[in-house]
Amino acid sequence: MKKHIMVAQSGGPTAAINASLAGVIRGALASETYDKIYGAIHGISGVLNEQFLELSERARTEERFLECLELSPAMFLGSCRIKMPDPMENPEIYDQIFRTLEKMHVGAFFYIGGNDSMDTVTKLSQAAKAFGSHILFAGVPKTIDNDLIHTDHTPGYGSAAKFIASSMLEIAHDTYIYDIPCVTIVEIMGRDAGWLTSAAALARNEYNRTPQLIYLPEVPFHRSQFVEDVKRELKKSKNVVVAVSEGIRDEKGIYISAKEAVADKFGHKQLSGVGKVLENIVKRELHIKVRSIELNILQRCAGHITSAQDLKESSELGEMAVKLTEEGKTGFMTSIRRISDTPYRYEIRQAELTEIANKERDVPREWINDAGNDVTEEMLRYIRPLVAGETKTEWKDGLPVYLPVPHLNHPGE
Amino acid sequence: MKKHIMVAQSGGPTAAINASLAGVIRGALASETYDKIYGAIHGISGVLNEQFLELSERARTEERFLECLELSPAMFLGSCRIKMPDPMENPEIYDQIFRTLEKMHVGAFFYIGGNDSMDTVTKLSQAAKAFGSHILFAGVPKTIDNDLIHTDHTPGYGSAAKFIASSMLEIAHDTYIYDIPCVTIVEIMGRDAGWLTSAAALARNEYNRTPQLIYLPEVPFHRSQFVEDVKRELKKSKNVVVAVSEGIRDEKGIYISAKEAVADKFGHKQLSGVGKVLENIVKRELHIKVRSIELNILQRCAGHITSAQDLKESSELGEMAVKLTEEGKTGFMTSIRRISDTPYRYEIRQAELTEIANKERDVPREWINDAGNDVTEEMLRYIRPLVAGETKTEWKDGLPVYLPVPHLNHPGE
Repeated sequence: MKKHIMVAQSGGPTAAINASLAGVIRGALASETYDKIYGAIHGISGVLNEQFLELSERARTEERFLECLELSPAMFLGSCRIKMPDPMENPEIYDQIFRTLEKMHVGAFFYIGGNDSMDTVTKLSQAAKAFGSHILFAGVPKTIDNDLIHTDHTPGYGSAAKFIASSMLEIAHDTYIYDIPCVTIVEIMGRDAGWLTSAAALARNEYNRTPQLIYLPEVPFHRSQFVEDVKRELKKSKNVVVAVSEGIRDEKGIYISAKEAVADKFGHKQLSGVGKVLENIVKRELHIKVRSIELNILQRCAGHITSAQDLKESSELGEMAVKLTEEGKTGFMTSIRRISDTPYRYEIRQAELTEIANKERDVPREWINDAGNDVTEEMLRYIRPLVAGETKTEWKDGLPVYLPVPHLNHPGE
Repeated sequence: MKKHIMVAQSGGPTAAINASLAGVIRGALASETYDKIYGAIHGISGVLNEQFLELSERARTEERFLECLELSPAMFLGSCRIKMPDPMENPEIYDQIFRTLEKMHVGAFFYIGGNDSMDTVTKLSQAAKAFGSHILFAGVPKTIDNDLIHTDHTPGYGSAAKFIASSMLEIAHDTYIYDIPCVTIVEIMGRDAGWLTSAAALARNEYNRTPQLIYLPEVPFHRSQFVEDVKRELKKSKNVVVAVSEGIRDEKGIYISAKEAVADKFGHKQLSGVGKVLENIVKRELHIKVRSIELNILQRCAGHITSAQDLKESSELGEMAVKLTEEGKTGFMTSIRRISDTPYRYEIRQAELTEIANKERDVPREWINDAGNDVTEEMLRYIRPLVAGETKTEWKDGLPVYLPVPHLNHPGE
């Protein structure tokens, strides 16, 4: 009798994580090894609570199911944020998971997520070996932050970068209209790494030089240098646009946003966003028109503007994970190796899980200019292929059509 | 000898104001009356400073000029915010404008803008009559705020509403992923009228009930009622999404955002956005996970997601303005009269300029529910046709292609 597979999603949403789910489903449908495809609801907690959906039936019978799934943002199966305990200290939870999966004839389990999820995959595969379970465990990467090691980039990053670059260009057009000096600060996600903020530089073209200044968490932020940078740029053009990572810090490593915490009338300290902080600096020091804009969660959930290359790779990473388990592999993550930038060539392969949960991949210092206020052409060569290509959103009554979310706990139930 | 025309843009940007410019150009190209088409840079100040572009040559020879212009956000010709003086008190400025236009053989001047721009058109046409100039002056409406009188709706509103509704649906997908109670506050533009925020309700569909609560400036906001509303909704679903106009006020008419001004460490008072204010109320009163999101200026400049219906009407309003001046009309604004909701039918016609600068059109109280925390089905019937249809953005290297901005003062020059 053929075994089944189970798949789950974890961590924060992206616009591409459902494409990886579609990839796992495609891989299983094409497989000689596997039969049914179960989805666990809310990540690994769905296995613990025995909340499952059978997906293969829908995938086989509903014509546009996989296509629509792929184009829907956030997690079709829901998410969780669970740090799994050490298998040696808490074997019961692993025992419960293995018994549940074996009862359901699951031969392989696929976890789509970021570094915490890969930590879960590591522990599950180690525990399976230690406790004699034959279930295979595979990780499929995703995170808009692009900070996983052992992969050239992460699914979800390309779509977020496309949203950021396109929004920056649109904001540029918005800034052009008045004939007075104006500074626009755009706050972009990225608590620890500057990959997302770097994508703002893609908005520059033959007529647009903005954003003229880009600040990343990898380089200490100096308030006085920032003021000098803005002053200098204002001499060159009336409109200065600044792209800044939410996670920029001073030389002591203290978040710039945290330093300017303000107290409300109840005395509660509030963390201002870093965009507001820089807005206030410009207002105080330069006394000119200034505004700040936070791109916020649309960076990760704007399903109507996704990178075709990103969704393609996301699906391929899911498919490859299934193939590798068919060869008996376990305890790995699928990953992307870049072969060349122009033309863009890459391969999907198997990567180590070692240290993936504990290490983050920062922007290399040499991809940031010496002054620490811009990225280099090398960085642009790296990002460009990842935002390439558009996807075909379906529209109905003026709105994008996404796959209804099947969670038990979605609003309305 | 044929006369020429001049066109200019004014006020805040929208994603549709260049479609109206394209409409004026189309009207003039098709006309037997007019020859050249001049664009004044930065609104009426371009006439005063004699900064012009000749547009008919490009429009006749560049194949995709009009199409690309129509799809580009913000103002191709730049904008200004100038309140024109009373013609009787300050005739010199009008005299200067008329002499400049007559010297250039301009027979008709078209101003695309909101209520301040319509005030300018009124004064120019009155001054022309009083001072014996034969130049005709026409207004073409635009504002994302949808608050102009004498028209069923305003160009730019449909595209902004489409962005808001689509973003709300994408945010809904983002909120679904965790299995814990969470409140999400989405702050939407609209200082005085709730039209834009009302569009959030379009995100509701067969699986999505969010946003469950909608607060508009037209109804006084009560903090305690808000807390009760959220509590009640949290009993029905784990995810509660609130759409709120930036301009909500208490019963005394004081902005909610202004009431919670906070002092930074330098003692400067800062206005929090209303989203942050509601976030803090929920945090303090309900002690659950809460976040606030500001949709910000992407509402008016996201050129890659515009309403086809909106751009079509915007162009038609520009074309009609040209036609009406061919009949010798002056001192008017083109406007939209709705004939029916379903099927959506409308006509483009001529409207009064009277009072348009001084009156704003609020959301009718009967289109808001009794509790003041939602809009009615009548409102949805009103908005639905305005967000209909998608436009075909051209993409290059992963980014939308917009028309390079010709201003003299754009960054890089």
